[in-house]
Amino acid sequence: MSDFGQEALKRHKRLRGKIAIQLKDTLDSREQLSTYYTPGVAAVSSYVAEHPDEARDYTWTNNSVAVISDGSAVLGLGRIGPYGALPVMEGKCMLFKHFAGIDAVPIVLNVHRADKIVAAVRAIAPSFGGINLEDIAAPICFEVEERLKKELPIPVMHDDQHGTAIVVLAGLINALKVKGSAIEKSKIVISGAGSAGVAIANLLWKYGARQILIVDSKGVIGPHRQDLTPVKKKLLEYNVSGTKGSLRAALSEADIFIGVSKAGLLSGRDIGLMAKDPIIFAMANPVPEIMPDEAKKAGALVVATGRSDFPNQINNALAFPGIFRGALDNGVKTITDDHKIAAAKTIAALVDKPTPDCIIPALSDKRLVPAIAKVIV
Amino acid sequence: MSDFGQEALKRHKRLRGKIAIQLKDTLDSREQLSTYYTPGVAAVSSYVAEHPDEARDYTWTNNSVAVISDGSAVLGLGRIGPYGALPVMEGKCMLFKHFAGIDAVPIVLNVHRADKIVAAVRAIAPSFGGINLEDIAAPICFEVEERLKKELPIPVMHDDQHGTAIVVLAGLINALKVKGSAIEKSKIVISGAGSAGVAIANLLWKYGARQILIVDSKGVIGPHRQDLTPVKKKLLEYNVSGTKGSLRAALSEADIFIGVSKAGLLSGRDIGLMAKDPIIFAMANPVPEIMPDEAKKAGALVVATGRSDFPNQINNALAFPGIFRGALDNGVKTITDDHKIAAAKTIAALVDKPTPDCIIPALSDKRLVPAIAKVIV
Repeated sequence: MSDFGQEALKRHKRLRGKIAIQLKDTLDSREQLSTYYTPGVAAVSSYVAEHPDEARDYTWTNNSVAVISDGSAVLGLGRIGPYGALPVMEGKCMLFKHFAGIDAVPIVLNVHRADKIVAAVRAIAPSFGGINLEDIAAPICFEVEERLKKELPIPVMHDDQHGTAIVVLAGLINALKVKGSAIEKSKIVISGAGSAGVAIANLLWKYGARQILIVDSKGVIGPHRQDLTPVKKKLLEYNVSGTKGSLRAALSEADIFIGVSKAGLLSGRDIGLMAKDPIIFAMANPVPEIMPDEAKKAGALVVATGRSDFPNQINNALAFPGIFRGALDNGVKTITDDHKIAAAKTIAALVDKPTPDCIIPALSDKRLVPAIAKVIV
Repeated sequence: MSDFGQEALKRHKRLRGKIAIQLKDTLDSREQLSTYYTPGVAAVSSYVAEHPDEARDYTWTNNSVAVISDGSAVLGLGRIGPYGALPVMEGKCMLFKHFAGIDAVPIVLNVHRADKIVAAVRAIAPSFGGINLEDIAAPICFEVEERLKKELPIPVMHDDQHGTAIVVLAGLINALKVKGSAIEKSKIVISGAGSAGVAIANLLWKYGARQILIVDSKGVIGPHRQDLTPVKKKLLEYNVSGTKGSLRAALSEADIFIGVSKAGLLSGRDIGLMAKDPIIFAMANPVPEIMPDEAKKAGALVVATGRSDFPNQINNALAFPGIFRGALDNGVKTITDDHKIAAAKTIAALVDKPTPDCIIPALSDKRLVPAIAKVIV
């Protein structure tokens, strides 16, 4: 374990949990006790039972989100289960509170089949104002999210899919401005067809991209492939050229590379196969598909990664706090593609004059959450 | 709705939720962000995944409890569903924090069959250090609690059953001291065979009672009854005299009446049927089986109710905060009958010299939680 990991472990052990419950009023007087608990609360419960649509006005559901994972795809660690996932979910809950003032509760699940996850989340859903699905492996994450969105009367978003896709689109809008070209005319290669890769492809297509090659561990997703899951089959229409073969075949004359795959996958020579002044989003964590300096040396015009120690950090935390802030405040029950595109445009617009080293706002930019929340309506 | 109910409704609407999440450290620096979230948290998640028994040292599960209800038996309101139950569960979470410093999260369930409740709670259990079941109707509550206790590696307690039973036993220990008699020689009548009545009967028997008649809406539970559920069948052995008939038949020469049934069930004349100097616990809420002054006039020696505006308030909040504080701090995985009896004795012992008007400590007694926690080992 790295020194930094050792230090993180020590800090976590000292803190024994990163979040806590706080009361919004004291319980020091008998009058407070009998207002907030029995007998006074009976009037509130009766009223809410008769008017369930108003529950959010009388309970914390107007501001609470469950951060839910089954621990099947945690960070780069893979299937480490609910106990291993909990420190990440608690951390995510910190981000929710810190950036958006949202009361988020970490829920880790001891079930892993899509129907069981859906059943568990549906069962507890009345406790919360929104559901942030997190670190659930593909392809189960797709079915889980789709069913929950259909069945629940509150916003549900799998952040690994859509948070990532929104921030990628935001970065891409500005990267294309820097390059002076249009997404409609760009040949885009996405490396990785997990939750993030699929969601990025879908959102870019919806936004106007007209040529996207998605590459998984077996090569380009195209009509020749006999092994495609239903979710990957839907990606076939984006391969307008009918391209087959490896990542390198896909990269030929490509304008944009988006990596959500693995460390060191891309070499400078691979970038040499691409069109002039390519845009490289190398977002494998913690080690990107190619290091920014190497990509630049090979001719990349704009390079983004998931890391905070390089320029252009593509980080979900730019998007999800504002998305949920808006959904909760504006009573939005379904987060649509239009919401995601509006959020991406909003994030992009916060950068005054995009440059190769600044296509995306900083996480600390206080304008982010209110600006995004305003367009989730 | 009463003026007090109107005021409670107004106060709840102003507060919009009675609890919130707070962070145990700030997230202001990049260093904090990368310690508590990515990339630092990866080391913690890896470690916890390999040592799930140590999850409580690195996450909030050392201090967190889920307060779970399906809304099937909320206060005196009955089956009002999860939305109606939520204000009560939030209130209960306030009590957990206020009295015991425990981080409790309200979870209301949209499922109501025993197997579905068990499945939902089991699925989310790794998120918490303990499970407080609340306001789940009998007889489902018995099966739910029994199965969860067996299947989960964390303490599970249905407070309507055991919290109530513990505080009743505590009060009874002191009431019997006031009367100068022993539980073994007392004829006890319990009115109500729901979750509380059954748990009280079981705990008093375990503590030493040797004659308990339990009366439900159809009369005394005895060998003549053909309509008994499995849980009620277990109560048959407590009816050592083979008594049949109505509540009044049961009351004949009884020493102790414990009501967890309904308002106004008992008259002064009924008390006249009992043995000399009877002990009356009339705990129907908010209106007791008999008002204290009427019971006293009819000859009762000690009267207790569930209300804060009369002496001797039998309130679960005397017990559950200390029970869970002890279970969490001492790593107790199953709350046993011995724990419950030890807790009851501890509560009783906090009253120096019991009198008819003081058999139980005040809720505000700061000695309660640490004293109870110490015996949950």
